[in-house]
Amino acid sequence: MTVEKCNRDRLWNSIMEIGQIGHAEVQGSKVGGCHRLALTDKDKQARDLFVAWAEEIGCTLRVDAVGNLFLRRPGIDNSLPPVMTGSHLDTQPTGGKFDGVYGCLAGLEVLRCLHEKNIQTLRPIEVVVWTNEEGARFKPAMLGSGVYAKVFKLEDVLSTKDEAGISLGAELTRLGYQAIVNNDAPMGYQYYELHIEQGPVLEALDVDLGVVAGVLGMRWYNVKVTGRSCHAGPSPMDLRNDALVGVAEMITELTRIAESQSKDSRCTIGELSIPSSSTNVSPGNVTFSLDLREGRVEDLDELQTKSFEAIHRIAFHHKLEIDIKETWSLPPCPFDEKCLDNIQQACAMSYPDIAPHRLISGAGHDAVYVSRVTPTAMIFVPSEDGLSHNEREYTSPEQLEKGCDVLLNTIILSANSN
Amino acid sequence: MTVEKCNRDRLWNSIMEIGQIGHAEVQGSKVGGCHRLALTDKDKQARDLFVAWAEEIGCTLRVDAVGNLFLRRPGIDNSLPPVMTGSHLDTQPTGGKFDGVYGCLAGLEVLRCLHEKNIQTLRPIEVVVWTNEEGARFKPAMLGSGVYAKVFKLEDVLSTKDEAGISLGAELTRLGYQAIVNNDAPMGYQYYELHIEQGPVLEALDVDLGVVAGVLGMRWYNVKVTGRSCHAGPSPMDLRNDALVGVAEMITELTRIAESQSKDSRCTIGELSIPSSSTNVSPGNVTFSLDLREGRVEDLDELQTKSFEAIHRIAFHHKLEIDIKETWSLPPCPFDEKCLDNIQQACAMSYPDIAPHRLISGAGHDAVYVSRVTPTAMIFVPSEDGLSHNEREYTSPEQLEKGCDVLLNTIILSANSN
Repeated sequence: MTVEKCNRDRLWNSIMEIGQIGHAEVQGSKVGGCHRLALTDKDKQARDLFVAWAEEIGCTLRVDAVGNLFLRRPGIDNSLPPVMTGSHLDTQPTGGKFDGVYGCLAGLEVLRCLHEKNIQTLRPIEVVVWTNEEGARFKPAMLGSGVYAKVFKLEDVLSTKDEAGISLGAELTRLGYQAIVNNDAPMGYQYYELHIEQGPVLEALDVDLGVVAGVLGMRWYNVKVTGRSCHAGPSPMDLRNDALVGVAEMITELTRIAESQSKDSRCTIGELSIPSSSTNVSPGNVTFSLDLREGRVEDLDELQTKSFEAIHRIAFHHKLEIDIKETWSLPPCPFDEKCLDNIQQACAMSYPDIAPHRLISGAGHDAVYVSRVTPTAMIFVPSEDGLSHNEREYTSPEQLEKGCDVLLNTIILSANSN
Repeated sequence: MTVEKCNRDRLWNSIMEIGQIGHAEVQGSKVGGCHRLALTDKDKQARDLFVAWAEEIGCTLRVDAVGNLFLRRPGIDNSLPPVMTGSHLDTQPTGGKFDGVYGCLAGLEVLRCLHEKNIQTLRPIEVVVWTNEEGARFKPAMLGSGVYAKVFKLEDVLSTKDEAGISLGAELTRLGYQAIVNNDAPMGYQYYELHIEQGPVLEALDVDLGVVAGVLGMRWYNVKVTGRSCHAGPSPMDLRNDALVGVAEMITELTRIAESQSKDSRCTIGELSIPSSSTNVSPGNVTFSLDLREGRVEDLDELQTKSFEAIHRIAFHHKLEIDIKETWSLPPCPFDEKCLDNIQQACAMSYPDIAPHRLISGAGHDAVYVSRVTPTAMIFVPSEDGLSHNEREYTSPEQLEKGCDVLLNTIILSANSN
């Protein structure tokens, strides 16, 4: 089989061009950040440009009931399930230009290469743009791929509301996606997702290609802590019932637990709010989010147990009441060995001098849900300084090219197998 | 001199009636809370009711340029500076029914008693409603009394904006206070402010009357902490630069410092915000408010020095950048000995069996600023559970009556001295 090669400049320029939609000028960022929350006008604009590019090379668009976009290039035998690749175009509130976007545009670059050289594949190929991967606007994350994989009920997802009270379904209607609904999205033959690592591991090893064997399991919680607010001046320190003082100790202890458990343990408190806060009132109520991750189910259980014990112990000591609600969870997710083999083979074909690093992703991806209904694996390229969900997120054109070359040859291998 | 007596039921009923404006039904609260931010429609409604009550008994209204209300009862010699008493009618976002309101309505009750018994005083008496004492809507606190005492420039205060961007001056205009501006508020002869303690000291001692000899000094700061945000999953714990983890340690350490310095030390972190927060992003930026209080200037200096050292030490350890801005400060404020003597004398007249407790207020009051231009002292009554700035704030009708009796006789003593 011939080794195919992508067009580095075309790939880079497309990523930069789509990144102009929601572009944020940021000091210290090589290419600027991107602010493009799911199903906003900017997200629609980026999706429209993406669809236009795919249609230029003869692809056809199918939109499912949750607004996932499937851009299809026919194969020789269109009765066969398609090989799928893709990712998402939405970003964090202050996100970068590569997270998700790279996977979509590398998928497009694969189709452009095939189109340009008029290469036919046995199976059809579909590039997918999943809806609301980030979970920054509509919670939880990965709603589009979750509906595809029947993890979520469509009607629940459509009625999910953002902080302004606008439902995901209402936004789909407003953006015109309801006119082209098609609920019968066929399952794929295999699904490959190319992504920036969003972490520091590949960079630290100085290896430009990662074969992703699975994803850390994760659990999200909302923790409400209740004490009693009082006036800042007249209340002696030893008579207070300050919820924030308790929460501060919890954050320190939860961080220590995750630091000491294993190299895969993660604990993040990303959101914290004090209702009706005032400078001279000691907080009576504090709410925070808790994101726990581990590589194996038993380790995740242990991390949760130790974290909950710490929260309750500190709350008891400070006479605080605790209410913990799990808001989302994903078990650890091992990927498909056959798909991983295809990626390894494509790496060896495209870059025989690179020994790709096999790793577990710390971040969730659409691939996690897709893997429940379609054999799946992922490819990583490095993220500079390990940064992602950050306006300074960066991966070089040369590194993006390597990942895309591997994706291109992986997809050709997959699309020609029966 | 005859000992005069206030009307307990009339005082209580007036407090309850004005508390209906902004009333909040709250479980566990004996009389409900009150939500009445400064210069909102509700605040205006309460002020209008207050003015109507004062005018019913022949008082005249004067409004100064910052919306402070002066209700005047003439004396025998109206060329003498008036004895003043008062407080404020605005509340915290989730405040109670007594903080400030009690001082205003006890002042009104004093005038009602004098009117009812047709008692003439040598000096005129003025009951004052100060604008925006709480600082919950327009910052800093005590803007009205601050303008009266020339601590703040009028034009600065008028252009102060709330979080919605509305200026205090625009609200005065909207509420109709600009039509009756009079900048020439005469300084008072003496100023007395009656207030609930807002702390647990009197209740713990089981003493219903407090003679307030001064107010703790206080300093407010805004602290910005900058690290680097990153994706919650792929970033190993030891490579993070999480601003919230640093801030949590700061809160714990700042609390410990205030706990260990002296019985008068206070440290409160009342507000904390994470810009662009998301559950799966470790915070790169956190901002918090810091409120430090102490009884003597040198102790306040020491508390500040130790607090700043702790913030910088923890920031260095976590590789975080720090920006601290002082947003407000008040030096410790001793009250006037002659005024304190009058209060002591009135206590002995009204309640010879009670030994009033002499204490330092932990909370700021309009009296602090007024004391810079007018001899001043304060009277406290207990707060149940030491609660204030809280919807469950409560003081019994009997305790309110005692404070009002002392205020009544104090004012008669003061208004008949030349």
